[in-house]
Amino acid sequence: MRYELFYWPSIQGRGEFVRLALAEAGADYVDVARAPGGMRRMLALMEDPDIVRPPFAPPFLRAGRQVVAQTANILQFLGPRLDLVPESEAMRLWAHQLQLTVEDLVVDIHDTHHPVAMTLYYEDQKREARRRAAFLTQERAPELLGYFETVLGRNGTGRYMVGRSLTYVDLSLFQIVDGLRYAFPKMMSRLEPTLPGLVALHERVSQRSNIAVYLDSDRRIPFNEDGIFRNYPELDG
Amino acid sequence: MRYELFYWPSIQGRGEFVRLALAEAGADYVDVARAPGGMRRMLALMEDPDIVRPPFAPPFLRAGRQVVAQTANILQFLGPRLDLVPESEAMRLWAHQLQLTVEDLVVDIHDTHHPVAMTLYYEDQKREARRRAAFLTQERAPELLGYFETVLGRNGTGRYMVGRSLTYVDLSLFQIVDGLRYAFPKMMSRLEPTLPGLVALHERVSQRSNIAVYLDSDRRIPFNEDGIFRNYPELDG
Repeated sequence: MRYELFYWPSIQGRGEFVRLALAEAGADYVDVARAPGGMRRMLALMEDPDIVRPPFAPPFLRAGRQVVAQTANILQFLGPRLDLVPESEAMRLWAHQLQLTVEDLVVDIHDTHHPVAMTLYYEDQKREARRRAAFLTQERAPELLGYFETVLGRNGTGRYMVGRSLTYVDLSLFQIVDGLRYAFPKMMSRLEPTLPGLVALHERVSQRSNIAVYLDSDRRIPFNEDGIFRNYPELDG
Repeated sequence: MRYELFYWPSIQGRGEFVRLALAEAGADYVDVARAPGGMRRMLALMEDPDIVRPPFAPPFLRAGRQVVAQTANILQFLGPRLDLVPESEAMRLWAHQLQLTVEDLVVDIHDTHHPVAMTLYYEDQKREARRRAAFLTQERAPELLGYFETVLGRNGTGRYMVGRSLTYVDLSLFQIVDGLRYAFPKMMSRLEPTLPGLVALHERVSQRSNIAVYLDSDRRIPFNEDGIFRNYPELDG
């Protein structure tokens, strides 16, 4: 099965959670909008009036005739196919529940620079951004990262978030730590001593062979100030 | 199977999407925190250090020994059990994808009155709230409701969002229309002429026998200014 991932070509964004899963599994996939003419194909697909089940927004994934959208839903679809989630329904629901909680944190991170409207420039909502960022750095990030640290600590040896092997949730938390280090280095140097499990998980994931190759390749788009994780020092407390 | 729903007892909030599903199906359930001592039980469960897979926040549902959290995930769990979703994996993913898009809209609605921090009072973020609400009423709500209207129109007879019978997605969109009419009546009277399918869906759902009984009972908590949908006229353009 060749997968086609449709996502904005110049940012990691939400698509990165899917890219990491595909990369870890060594899946056969195309990052459609990064290829010549791909952006046009993506927009055409979104606006095609003949599509009975249209996605609202990227990312979405095409697998044969099926199109799946919403990041956590794509990961839920890919999990069993890429061997990135346990077998049982209960464990799959648990993995998905954690992924949706990761999504909540992603919204809070995104909204630090876009607290008013995603269609306005950051420069037009800087005042609101400072207040919203303080909520993230002082309340939400400590609370949510602390929650994930607790979950990790309660799971057996504390090496994986779910079950006894790597899942897409581990990959997503790698991305969260990686992105927060880029966007909020001061906050992270303050919080990391309280998050030894997540810090070690980030390190382990970064050294997995397929992930290490991916991170070192041009498939990994560098962090920049158009994505979810933006390095705006004035927001980093 | 007796289900136990854990959610804040004085608001509809996110729990209402689950309550509507349980009510429609005539399921045997307890709204735990609304019973004497229930609030204490809910908080104790969240803080229990012996729980291996703790929920981050309400709502969560207990079914036997299993605890499931995150609204859309709870509905995904209940869907097959309450006959509120089609059989095939592809259709279940599609229903869930729509539910996650409903959740995106719920965040945008909630953040109109809490654009800075959910832990601050509305009064302490009123200026930001006005700007954020304008984004909802002028951009996001028209865009997302228009999307749902399109999806409905493309699905066969246009009576259901997914497949050929009622799903939890229909119940959730009933709740969205109902809540937006309460919170943003001016916006809705402007938009509704462009949303005939959703308006008719809201009406049909409200007349289903179990839902009609539920809405008329004291199990349905009235809208108020502590929940997601708040009637603040200054935010309604």
